[in-house]
Amino acid sequence: MKRVYNFNAGPSAMPLEVLKQVQQEFLDFAGTGMSIVEISHRSAVYQDMQDDTVAMLRRLLEVPAGYHVVFMQGGGSMQFLMHGANFLKQRGGYINTGVWSTKAMQAAAFVGEVYEIATSGDKNFSYIPRSDTFVIRPDTDYVYITSNNTIHGTEWKKFPKFNIPVICDMSSDFLARPIDVSRFDLIYAGVQKNLGPAGVVAAIIKDSFLETARTDIPVMLQYKTFTEHDSTYNTPPVFCIYFVNKVLHWLENQGGLEKMQERNAHKAQIVYKTIDDSAGFYIGHAAMDSRSNMNVTFNLRTPELEKKFLIEADAAGFVGIKGHRSIGGCRASLYNAVTEEACAALSEFMQNFQKNN
Amino acid sequence: MKRVYNFNAGPSAMPLEVLKQVQQEFLDFAGTGMSIVEISHRSAVYQDMQDDTVAMLRRLLEVPAGYHVVFMQGGGSMQFLMHGANFLKQRGGYINTGVWSTKAMQAAAFVGEVYEIATSGDKNFSYIPRSDTFVIRPDTDYVYITSNNTIHGTEWKKFPKFNIPVICDMSSDFLARPIDVSRFDLIYAGVQKNLGPAGVVAAIIKDSFLETARTDIPVMLQYKTFTEHDSTYNTPPVFCIYFVNKVLHWLENQGGLEKMQERNAHKAQIVYKTIDDSAGFYIGHAAMDSRSNMNVTFNLRTPELEKKFLIEADAAGFVGIKGHRSIGGCRASLYNAVTEEACAALSEFMQNFQKNN
Repeated sequence: MKRVYNFNAGPSAMPLEVLKQVQQEFLDFAGTGMSIVEISHRSAVYQDMQDDTVAMLRRLLEVPAGYHVVFMQGGGSMQFLMHGANFLKQRGGYINTGVWSTKAMQAAAFVGEVYEIATSGDKNFSYIPRSDTFVIRPDTDYVYITSNNTIHGTEWKKFPKFNIPVICDMSSDFLARPIDVSRFDLIYAGVQKNLGPAGVVAAIIKDSFLETARTDIPVMLQYKTFTEHDSTYNTPPVFCIYFVNKVLHWLENQGGLEKMQERNAHKAQIVYKTIDDSAGFYIGHAAMDSRSNMNVTFNLRTPELEKKFLIEADAAGFVGIKGHRSIGGCRASLYNAVTEEACAALSEFMQNFQKNN
Repeated sequence: MKRVYNFNAGPSAMPLEVLKQVQQEFLDFAGTGMSIVEISHRSAVYQDMQDDTVAMLRRLLEVPAGYHVVFMQGGGSMQFLMHGANFLKQRGGYINTGVWSTKAMQAAAFVGEVYEIATSGDKNFSYIPRSDTFVIRPDTDYVYITSNNTIHGTEWKKFPKFNIPVICDMSSDFLARPIDVSRFDLIYAGVQKNLGPAGVVAAIIKDSFLETARTDIPVMLQYKTFTEHDSTYNTPPVFCIYFVNKVLHWLENQGGLEKMQERNAHKAQIVYKTIDDSAGFYIGHAAMDSRSNMNVTFNLRTPELEKKFLIEADAAGFVGIKGHRSIGGCRASLYNAVTEEACAALSEFMQNFQKNN
């Protein structure tokens, strides 16, 4: 069986072991005589699986008491709307680090007043703003941040402390490193980077924050609908949650989040070193102190050379190296399931391309 | 491999041939060297698959020009909100045939004025109201109907003509019979009955109706966002759409919707005949002229006997026979993928149970 080197930004590479497990039991889930796609979400066998998924997430992330874990549909884009609809009352403060936080702010602007606490827009979102530049206005309901910026390739290395609630979109580095959940009031993540197939968002919500949520909004936009009905107010995306369950077990078997963080840092280092050792042949987009371990973004000297690089990378079996359509250039996404071997192969390819050009 | 008789109301039985195909190619989609869950929704190979899915849906349903076909997340419950948010300006008229139309009406009431054009609530939603009872008030923006009522086991056999726009929730009999799409302005269906895994809604929207939609609502609640971005404004639920694609091809291979209608009528007849021949041992819930070919709902004479029946049915490998938690009793859901053999086996079981009790 041929497997390519998959550097897609999301949907993205999944662990081969998980894919094989899902394949193997696809006609008969847990001895039910039914496929996972055929079982009722009101059955005990489904509920057990979902309970286990929540428990695994809690264990891996060490989620403290006083938080709910839920699954929702609609992707990050629906969260861009929901977080504001639920929690924006006076004004929402955003640390704008790229396309996704901009979109979140725009969606919340539909609900009420929003403003930038800080932005790295002055340098094409190539860095994470320093906390001493933050200006938080009075009556700000929450600080909104994006932990990893898929498009620009930056990542918060440390999360600053705030004395107001913190909402964090962790879509692209969720479960790629340990997180102190107690520092956040709402964490959400579309799972299609590190955790599973597109179609489900995992969210971790602090109960005391949830109690402050607006209730004058439609039922399907209220986080409470999902917490109070244990993610089954209506039919959940069963297959996606099931797949996430498998990946969570895989993560635990790999040694958990500290191990993943270590491995991800090592993988990213392989590619960043190739860039740094290229004497300017490859030009990293992100500032050194803000480099993402998930998405390595870089350019070549000219658009022509970039084009040639992308064509040859594709021909050599490296998938997904083209940068996001909004900024162009190149990008290698190195999520949990991307192997060290794939990173080494990419590094070798980059070095050879440099020699030949 | 053991396969049970799956009469789940949704998620529900899927065609075994499709399950096997999905399993077989799960590690390598279309020769990409990636699983379907690993491919980018911005890739040509994804777009081709989605285009084919839309084309298949158009072909099977003979969707006329002037309509868009889109895929969305959030299930029917999100549609309960979206249809009102987009199209309710003065008042929305509902033909209330059960739990789902009630929920749709309640969700739309958040947006504006709603009322019942007719209801069968007087007899526990056991029938479809006659069109000569409809009272449509002036300035009604649309008529809303539910084509098949999963919980109560009723189904519109013919759709009346209206001279205002018609919105129809076809979740539970979508692609189970031919439909004259030109009679509708918005059709939507959660796919987890006849078409695929929970997690995607298919919708068919008339362009001229869409032009009347409200634009003063959030982007993610606008149908236009999905039509204008060809269902990929944000990451679509790739696996679900892919699975639907397989089922659509299976439907075509089965002979299309007329063939399915014929087969579904025959399957339902097997179970209804068992009820009708039981001399009152089994009591059908739906009025004869409103009986659903998708969901056969019935009771036994006493709750004790019903309980015994459900326990023995379960032990004999008939899954999902318990009625919806909101009305109780028994229900056999006979969607496209449920075989005639399964219906015959259920009938035999029911007859034997009657003999022994």
